[in-house]
Parts: sequence; C-alpha cells; structure tokens
Amino acid sequence: MSHNSFGHLLRVTTWGESHGPAIGAVVDGCPPGIALCEADIQPFLDARRPGQSRFTTQRQEPDQVRILSGVYEGATTGTPISLIIDNVDQRSKDYGDIAAAYRPGHADYAYDAKYGRRDPRGGGRSSARETAMRVAAGAIARKIIPDVRILGWVAQIGDVAIDPARFDADVIGQNPFFCPDALVAEQWAELVDGVRKAGSSIGAIVEVVADGVPAGWGAPIYAKLDGDLAGAMMGINAVKGVEIGDGFAVAALSGEGNADAMRPGSNGLPAFLSNHAGGISGGISTGQPVRVRMAFKPTSSILTPVPSITKDGQPTEVRTKGRHDPCVGIRGVPVAEAMLALTLADHMLLHRAQCT
Amino acid sequence: MSHNSFGHLLRVTTWGESHGPAIGAVVDGCPPGIALCEADIQPFLDARRPGQSRFTTQRQEPDQVRILSGVYEGATTGTPISLIIDNVDQRSKDYGDIAAAYRPGHADYAYDAKYGRRDPRGGGRSSARETAMRVAAGAIARKIIPDVRILGWVAQIGDVAIDPARFDADVIGQNPFFCPDALVAEQWAELVDGVRKAGSSIGAIVEVVADGVPAGWGAPIYAKLDGDLAGAMMGINAVKGVEIGDGFAVAALSGEGNADAMRPGSNGLPAFLSNHAGGISGGISTGQPVRVRMAFKPTSSILTPVPSITKDGQPTEVRTKGRHDPCVGIRGVPVAEAMLALTLADHMLLHRAQCT
Amino acid sequence: MSHNSFGHLLRVTTWGESHGPAIGAVVDGCPPGIALCEADIQPFLDARRPGQSRFTTQRQEPDQVRILSGVYEGATTGTPISLIIDNVDQRSKDYGDIAAAYRPGHADYAYDAKYGRRDPRGGGRSSARETAMRVAAGAIARKIIPDVRILGWVAQIGDVAIDPARFDADVIGQNPFFCPDALVAEQWAELVDGVRKAGSSIGAIVEVVADGVPAGWGAPIYAKLDGDLAGAMMGINAVKGVEIGDGFAVAALSGEGNADAMRPGSNGLPAFLSNHAGGISGGISTGQPVRVRMAFKPTSSILTPVPSITKDGQPTEVRTKGRHDPCVGIRGVPVAEAMLALTLADHMLLHRAQCT
Amino acid sequence: MSHNSFGHLLRVTTWGESHGPAIGAVVDGCPPGIALCEADIQPFLDARRPGQSRFTTQRQEPDQVRILSGVYEGATTGTPISLIIDNVDQRSKDYGDIAAAYRPGHADYAYDAKYGRRDPRGGGRSSARETAMRVAAGAIARKIIPDVRILGWVAQIGDVAIDPARFDADVIGQNPFFCPDALVAEQWAELVDGVRKAGSSIGAIVEVVADGVPAGWGAPIYAKLDGDLAGAMMGINAVKGVEIGDGFAVAALSGEGNADAMRPGSNGLPAFLSNHAGGISGGISTGQPVRVRMAFKPTSSILTPVPSITKDGQPTEVRTKGRHDPCVGIRGVPVAEAMLALTLADHMLLHRAQCT
Repeated sequence: MSHNSFGHLLRVTTWGESHGPAIGAVVDGCPPGIALCEADIQPFLDARRPGQSRFTTQRQEPDQVRILSGVYEGATTGTPISLIIDNVDQRSKDYGDIAAAYRPGHADYAYDAKYGRRDPRGGGRSSARETAMRVAAGAIARKIIPDVRILGWVAQIGDVAIDPARFDADVIGQNPFFCPDALVAEQWAELVDGVRKAGSSIGAIVEVVADGVPAGWGAPIYAKLDGDLAGAMMGINAVKGVEIGDGFAVAALSGEGNADAMRPGSNGLPAFLSNHAGGISGGISTGQPVRVRMAFKPTSSILTPVPSITKDGQPTEVRTKGRHDPCVGIRGVPVAEAMLALTLADHMLLHRAQCT
Repeated sequence: MSHNSFGHLLRVTTWGESHGPAIGAVVDGCPPGIALCEADIQPFLDARRPGQSRFTTQRQEPDQVRILSGVYEGATTGTPISLIIDNVDQRSKDYGDIAAAYRPGHADYAYDAKYGRRDPRGGGRSSARETAMRVAAGAIARKIIPDVRILGWVAQIGDVAIDPARFDADVIGQNPFFCPDALVAEQWAELVDGVRKAGSSIGAIVEVVADGVPAGWGAPIYAKLDGDLAGAMMGINAVKGVEIGDGFAVAALSGEGNADAMRPGSNGLPAFLSNHAGGISGGISTGQPVRVRMAFKPTSSILTPVPSITKDGQPTEVRTKGRHDPCVGIRGVPVAEAMLALTLADHMLLHRAQCT
Repeated sequence: MSHNSFGHLLRVTTWGESHGPAIGAVVDGCPPGIALCEADIQPFLDARRPGQSRFTTQRQEPDQVRILSGVYEGATTGTPISLIIDNVDQRSKDYGDIAAAYRPGHADYAYDAKYGRRDPRGGGRSSARETAMRVAAGAIARKIIPDVRILGWVAQIGDVAIDPARFDADVIGQNPFFCPDALVAEQWAELVDGVRKAGSSIGAIVEVVADGVPAGWGAPIYAKLDGDLAGAMMGINAVKGVEIGDGFAVAALSGEGNADAMRPGSNGLPAFLSNHAGGISGGISTGQPVRVRMAFKPTSSILTPVPSITKDGQPTEVRTKGRHDPCVGIRGVPVAEAMLALTLADHMLLHRAQCT
Repeated sequence: MSHNSFGHLLRVTTWGESHGPAIGAVVDGCPPGIALCEADIQPFLDARRPGQSRFTTQRQEPDQVRILSGVYEGATTGTPISLIIDNVDQRSKDYGDIAAAYRPGHADYAYDAKYGRRDPRGGGRSSARETAMRVAAGAIARKIIPDVRILGWVAQIGDVAIDPARFDADVIGQNPFFCPDALVAEQWAELVDGVRKAGSSIGAIVEVVADGVPAGWGAPIYAKLDGDLAGAMMGINAVKGVEIGDGFAVAALSGEGNADAMRPGSNGLPAFLSNHAGGISGGISTGQPVRVRMAFKPTSSILTPVPSITKDGQPTEVRTKGRHDPCVGIRGVPVAEAMLALTLADHMLLHRAQCT
C-alpha cells in the first residue's frame, strides 16, 4: 500500500528527486540464486540515458548504477536489492522562476495543491528522472523470467506512424527513435528536428510486446494481468492512454471480427489464428504475445509562453528554458519495456504461489 | 494483495460465480456515520440490471441487494459492509458443451490453463455478473464523496459516435443506450437491432466524468490517480483500452496544443482554459473534471460458429447460444461510473491520511 | 491493507456483527483443485461452538456454515470462497443498558471514541463471535498444508497449570476444557464452576503446536513467521501475551542454555537436540515443531458491579448480565489453531512464490 | 505485501546486509511539512550504537545517517525519504568458518534452507545491524506524532528484575543498561561482566510505554493496534515473547481483578482507575498509556562450543569468536521504542483517513 512501491510479490520501491544527491530503488521479493551484477542492468539504463542524440534532452547523466545489497558472490540471495544512481549534472542553480509560477501541463500546481510544498528543482519527484529506476528494476525482472522476450518501439510521432509492413526489429536499434521502420525514422528525424528548433514538443505512441509468456499468468478479478499492465503503463510520466491488443479499435469490431479462433497446435498447446486480445483473456495470459500500446503526450516544457499563474495566484506567462526532450515518448520505450517486464515477473511469482 | 480486492483504504472484496447461489461484496474502510440503506444502492443496480430492453441480455435478475453488516440504525459504523445478491435466473442445466470446448474470446481457455479447472456455468467467476457488486460498492463510494458528481454514457457503438455538439446529459436516461445524443440513439437502435438479430455483437466506447474533484487527490509515483483509474477500468470485463483526458489524441499534439493554460479563477483557485489532461497531472487531480474513456470489445458470445478446440485439444467449432448482450458496452456505463467513484473515494481517504 | 483482512497471499476477509443477520468470510488465494465441502469445515466450528457445556456461554448457535462460491464439483476453483453462518440466537432486545454505559474491559468505549457510534448488540463487531469465521477459514487452510498437523490445548486456567509430565494428546478431546492433563481437567471443573456460579470469570493460557512444518517458511524482515504469528494471535479477542518457543523464559537463560544444538539427522535433515526457539529462527521455520503460547484475559462480562461512566460522561456502575463465557480462553483453542493454520498456509504460498 | 516493508500507510522498507557497503531505509507516506534533518535522527542512532560500553559489541560504527530524498529546505515534502548509513567497521575477512557450519541459535540454517544460499558475513541480512534503520525511521515517526511521548527501558537481565518501587525515568540514561533502577543497574554491571568474561550471553526483558496516545487509534479486526504491535515487536531480532498491559499475568486474574474501572475525568475524557489493558481495548487505544513488554533471548554467539552440523550435513562443533553483545536486549531498547513509534504513527494516519 506504499505510494512509491510497485508490484504484488516482486515489489519495487523507488525514491529520489531530479536534483537531489541520488535516486534509487529497492527491489524486494526477487528469487534467490539469479546471477546478477551491475553489467546486467547498465545496458538498459544506457538505452534510456539522456543526451545521446540531439532528439533527447542534453542533460548529461552517466546513470551508473550500483548494487548495494541483496547480491552475494554474483547471485541474488532473496533479500532486498538496493540500487542507487548518483545525480551528476543537476544545474539547479536557477529554479527560482519555476518555484514561483506553475508550468502549465506540469505537475507543479498539483503537487503544491496536494502537499503545500514541493522541490521545484528539475521537477523534483515528478521528474521523468525517476523512470531510470524503473528501467534498472526492469532489468532484474527480465532475469526472473528469462524465457520471456520483451521488445518495444515507437510506433508514431506526431501524426506520422510506422507502416507495419515495413516493420523490422533489427532496425529499432539503428536509429535514435527506437523506430522499426527505416523509412519513417528518416521522416521523424526531420519532424523532431523542426520541433526541437522551434522550442516546441510533440507526442508519440509506443508499443511493447512480450513473447514467450505462458498461458495462466494473471489473477482475476482485481489483479488481472491487463488491469495491472494498464496501471503500470498509465503511471509512466506523460502517458495518457493504454491499449491491450486491438485496444480502441475493438469498438468498431463485430464479435466475428474480434474472435481469436483456435486450432490444435504443436506440443499440446492451442494455435490461435489471430491475436485481437493481445494475449490476455479474462485477465489471464493465453500464451499468445502480450501486446500493449500507449500514448505519450508532448513534453510540457516549451519555449512558447503559456498563460499561467504564480504561486500567489497572480497571472503570469511561463516559458520553459533549459534542457528538455522534444519528444518524451522516445525515451519512454525502455521504460515501457521495464514496466512490462516487472508486471510479468510479478505475475509469474503470483501464479507460482497459487497454482504450482 | 488479495486478487479479488480493489482499493487501498476503501477496500472492496467481491466473490461469487454467475450461477452459484449468490454473489457478494465486502466493503471495508468506509468512514462511520454515513447514512446508508439498501435503497441507496438499488437504483444503481437497477441501471445495470439485465433484461430491461431488447438490447441487453434477456436473463432476468431482480438483483435485489441486501446489507448484512456494517450498518446500524441507518448509518455506517466503520466496520465492514457485507452486500449480497441472490442469483435467481440461472438456467445452468445445459453447460456441458461449454465445459467441453473453449469459446474463442472468452476466458474459458485461460482459466483452465491457469487453474486446471473452472466453473463453466455462465462463465463462472469470469462472468460480467461480478460487475453487479462493483456497482453496489460504487453506490457506497458515492456517499463517501458526496460533493463529487459522476456521470457516464456510451460515446460510440460500432463506428457510430455521438456528436459532442448534441451532447445533452438529460437524454442519457431517456434511451436504452445511456446515449447523450438523441439522434444517435435512434441510429444505435437500428444498428444494435441488426446485430442482435444476426446473432452477432458489436463493440462500444464509454466515457465517464467526475465533476467536483478537488485538487490534490492521487499519490505519486505508484498509486497515481490516473494509474489507479487505468487499472480499475481495464479490469472491467471486455475493456481493451483506457484514456485519460485527450488520450491517444495527444500523440499528434504539439506542446502548445496540449498545454492547459491557467488564469486566476474565483475563490482563489486557478481557472484552466482547457482540459487536455483530463483533470490529472503528475498523477494528482488538478481540480478540473476527471475524464476517462474506455473501449469495450464486442461480446464473444455469438451464433456464428468459430473454429476452436475441445478441452482435450481436438478441433471443433463453437457457437454460443443462450442469452447474451449484443453490445456489452451499454451495461458497462454503470460499472465504469462505479469504478470511478470507488477510485476517487479511495484516493480521498489516502489524501486525508497523509495531507490533512 | 484492509482492516478486516488477514494474510499475504491466502487472504481472509471477515465481516459481520454479533447480532446482525449473519457473519461471514471470504477466503481468497486458495489454490485450485483442493477437495472441499461444508463437512470439512463444520467439525472445527463445532469444537468452538458455544453452549456445549456449562463452562461456556449458553448462547445456542448451530453455527452451520454454507459455502457460497469458489467450489465447483467438490473442489476449489482458485476463485474466492465465500463462507456464511446465519446468526440464530441473538436475543438482542435488551441492549439499552449497554448502549448507554461503557462496560469496563470491553471495547465499548474504544469503539465509540474511534467511530463516534457502534452496534452495541452483543458487542457488535468486537464480539468473539467473529472468531467463528477464523475457525471456518482455518479449516480451509489446513487442507492447503495437509502434511502439517496442528494441535492446541489449554495449559493453564487461573493459577492451575497442567503438568507436562501428564500430557496426553488423547485426553484433550475427552473434557470440556481442551485439557491434555486428566487430573488437572477435574480441578478446572471445580475451579470454573466456582467462577461461573460467582458470576465472575478467569483467565487462561493456550498452547498450539504445528508439526510437519518444513524448514524455510517465513519471510524476513517484516513478514517473519514469528512476527506474523504474534500479530495473528494477539489479534484474537482477549489475548494479551504471545510467546514463541521458550518465550519470556529466555530472559533468564544463558546462551548455552538457549542453544538448540544440531546433529546430522535422518533423510539429510538436521536433528535438533532441543527446541527453545519454537521452530523459528531469524523469522524462518527450522523444520522443528512451531510452538506458540498465548494468554487470554478473563471475560470482562461479570456480575460484580464495576465503576464506569455513561456515554454522556456521568458516573455509573455496570454489571453484565446475559450469557457469557466464564473462561473465554477455553473456546480460544480452536481459534488459535485456526490462526496458526492460516499463517502457515499463507507462508507456504509466499515461500513457494519466491523460492520454488 | 513486501517482505522487507513495515506499516500500512507510513511504510518503511529496509535493505542491506551487515557487511555490505551500506544499509538503508525508505520511509514512504510521511506527511509533508514536517521539519526534518539528520540531526533529528542521529541521537536515536547514537543511543543504539555499538561499542559505547563494555557491555555491548565492540564493533565500532559511527552510524552516521544521511537523508538522500524527501526533504527540501528543511522539511518533508511528502515524497519518500531515503536514509542511508555506510558500513565502516566490517572485518569480514574471516567468515569461512561461519559459511561452512551452522551456528546453533542463529538464522544460518534457516536462511540456507529457505534460499539455498546466504551472505554469511556478520549474519548478512539476519544481522541485528538492520535494526539501525528501524531506529532511524522511528525518529521520523516520532515527529509525525509529536504529542506522544515514548520511553523504553530494560526491566530484567537474567533473573534480576528491576523493583518498580525504585523506578526513576531519569536514571535510564545514566547507566549503560537503560536501567531505571539505580541499584539494579549496579547488579547488572557485575552480572553482565561475568557473562562477558565467560564468553557467554544472557537474556533480558524490555518495556516500552507511550504516553499521550489519544483514544481511537487501531483498526479492528486484522489491523488491531495490539496485533500490529505484537507483530512489530516479535519481528525484532531475538525477541521471543510480547505482552500488552498485564500480559501473561492475566491468566491468573479474575474478571474483577482485570477490570479497568472508569470514572468521569477532566476535560470530558474518562479517568481509568487502573491499566491492566495496557491502553488498548478491542484493538483500539483507550487514551491510557500503551504498555508493551518483550523478552530478548541471549545472543547465540558464545565461546562455548555447541554441537552442530556443516553445510554438508557433517557433525561439527561451533564456537563463535568475534565481537558480539553479551546481552542483546540492552541495545533492543531504542529498537523497541522505534517500532512503537512507527506503529503508532502509522495508526494515527489510518485513523485520520477513516475517521476524520
């Protein structure tokens, strides 16, 4: 029931502000005997790391993770794994403006309304910097379910979507957009460059898929796999919509069009003829790939002045200088992958507890 | 951590199968001293009740709720409130077919894969009948936050959407579709009639809005108001997508287009010039209306035969006779309202605990 | 986090007041495929049932349990099991006195101070009647861990304790005190008869032991097996002290006197030469019998007038007429057994989740 | 549901091993706006710190706490507070013996049986070093309930108990035993010196009392204040028994002897004429002082060889050299105080949520 913890049995607690000395996570409930070292986690952090292309924020953070507990002689012991990343490039000297006026679209006003105070430096706790710890924890989750393969990509930026016919998983790592469509990646470069130069920002859609999830994970009624995934994804900074399988497109479908017909498959398992359900039925995995989509809003930090109010309720205009992502959805890909890994690993443990 | 409980502090546990003797819920954590009797709950159940028009299932259930505990001399005592509804019209004599073969799109296969067994009568625990208890619990939640006004409606059936310009809240209760657009309600009557007669089904989109939510509800990072709402809504039977505010439309927006500008308002609160955020920022309510949308898939129970397999893995075809909703999204409206009420009341309590 | 739920993965939610229409429990998280019917539960309820000898309250309750969900064709399905017992012999017509003045030692004042109101009939929610549902749920827990044998008894009433040298498990069921010492059982009959006739009451000590618990159950640091057991037992009505193993006697022991030496045992497991630890070390079971002791205070309901105050703060005297247990510890035995079974079954599931 | 988290709403997650680089805690759910800095926490850590007299372990740890998040400009922000203490004096070079054989009375065997592996250095996660973080978190809890005064002391070492007639709270801080009886403190010095020189150890009883707890805290049935306190205290390393109020002595009491009579008091509250209940009735505080007692077993680390087995199941003898507490109960006082503070602050929040 902790506000800053995620998961039922694989339980991740994160802490830290954007411009505090460090950020961290405690991963509790990890099975013992899993080989684990910092090098298992670092590549996922590197994929999310800012400052790697001109299309993301220029804040330079090495994001070097350290494991402080829960691992002995190269393997997990079953006790809590403490992860920490020092904050390096904070530049918080000049946050007086932000402390005094609310940036529209940011959590500034909501935090003040709730707590009566907030750490304004870099967004404080509401900063997307917190998602680094999700990525680190997600790397551990992947090792708990080694047979599950998780892959994410950006499917749309602005109104330019990938063409599924050109989908090539190998292309995802070859451009700064996690884009599986080489042609569209070029269009996005131009699009996002324009956005960036204009001091504006743009939204995006991200997709993540998990292959190799066996049938049976998920716990009806109020810990359904899709319910938990929706909560996990909607809780990522800037996400405003989540779909499982066909998502909103199901509204226009008939029962015939939506039915995932089954045939006898190999090794005793059913072969499905389609996957409208996105691999989840009744809140439980079916053995098909688990497919999730989510929409990221455009970063609220823009150079264009927007009408706002000060902390004292006076009218003002706010324009956000500083280093920001022109399209925050891009770096959302490793975060979404991590939340998928965490949710699945958690449900594997839940399932094993009840149904071994 | 219960699989069949919902909420942090206002905690609802439901139980029961479609064709068992009864279904029920235990509502725990309700504040004391709230006037409550069955008549406060019944109207919401009546709104969800099947068999009221030809557009919903013909199963006849009076859905008469009884309060078995937690209320004394007409008011809550702070102890758990037990609610029960007897199942009346079960007709489960003939479920041999369903027990033997998996209905595509249903949870049949997933339940068997998970548990190794299931109650096949009427879908057992996976039946939408469980949602009656959400509606009953939601009626109690509304009384906990009496200043919050919650309203839901169907926004789209198939590919026929309402016209926001014709939105009239008074129209919602005047047609069997919870439709706020009188013109579209007539089109839906024809559409759903055709679907029903064809033994088919059709999807829908439902919207719910809460007015009167003060700024400050929601608990970052992993109990965000939007994260919890997404989990709550995606956990409703047949829901495949959830949006907060502008939802997936944000992908195509620029930062300027998405910014909810603020001006000094009356009574010391800000006046927002738009509500792209759907009333939630950083996981915390802003004082604007909380807007949620969700997509319901078409009922999987259709007369058209669909390829499937038997429990023993043999190929077969399945067509679902019996009484079913041609458009399950319609009766989803009271359920979505209830989940919104429950989530908000829960977060009011959470907020009060930490930030009084 | 529900106030009226117990357990991590095997999660029991109880509801109901002493003089409401019924009491009940929802048992969630039970593994599927366990043979279960009412007859599996009833004997444990019968052991706790009031009115069976002159040494317990004369309230006559058949305590007939019904299973309303979660079981299909004689076996659990993995969905929540709803249990209900109708209240039959309430006699609540005359609770005006109790409503108006606080009975010293009862929860009357505390409930009013907390909630501002309470159901005074028979103690309402604070009545020991609630423990019937613990016993019912405990019967299910026993079936989840069939290799664990649980046995409880009364070890002391007033200042008359059993002699361990005369301990005979077969004697426990042969007297109305769950007394394993035939000689002491006779002394207790005289003692409790005197107490009863005087309209007084007396305290007791209860012991419960679980044999067959394998090493490895328990989850450090804050879900330790002994920590959870202590919480479970102290939460039973009237319990004021809990000991694991040697309990308070360890204060006077030296390290040498307290050490449970180990030798190589049969089948690869260690043989312990003593069991001061009560089968738990570092919060984890060691494979030895788990031993728990607890003290029950004397029932507060006595005929002797005790100074008290009215709800309005005026001085008064209270004497409690009506039907009450002269020694509530006696009927505590099946309750303590149930809490031990529930805690162990829950930890078996927790252990299986993390360490399979 | 985390294994390494404590509390419902004020939620403390601890991590770290005795000989890892650091230990830490995340305190989540703390109300905003509470003045907090390291100097508020350090005195409590200093009271628990080892190496301050010859009666505790000679390990030298400065136990300097750092706050890494959740505090801004000297006050809490409502976001998680991360606390960290570097481990300094580890001396873990020689733990080969401990890794190879099980120390009787330690958690060595239980951890291996559960996890299949463990960090043997200094007891790893099962070390009492973890309790430093409870003390640090407890210091924060005290600031959440500033009107509650918490005081603990040692009441018995071996078979030498304090004389309540000589109880003097001012004496507690004037001797190395937290002893409120000056005369007995001298006897303990001799007693514990003898134990220490013999390479042995001895048990103790600790008492903690909270004054100023208002009536109404506690949440029946399964989050009772006494139930939660019992779990909290029994979960402290080496504790084997917990009592609330009169504890085990109630077994010998009559209803008359146990009744806490009430009279009209000042300021509208009742005046109790005794406090057998220890300030809790029906799981809810009554406004009287909350009294808790607990028994600490003697440290298992002794120089006397004890029969044991190796990891491979071979017979051996174990004697524990190194630096250890001859009476671990002494340093248990600040830990017990902390668990009392944490439990009470948590229940204040719970109560405020439901019953404001």
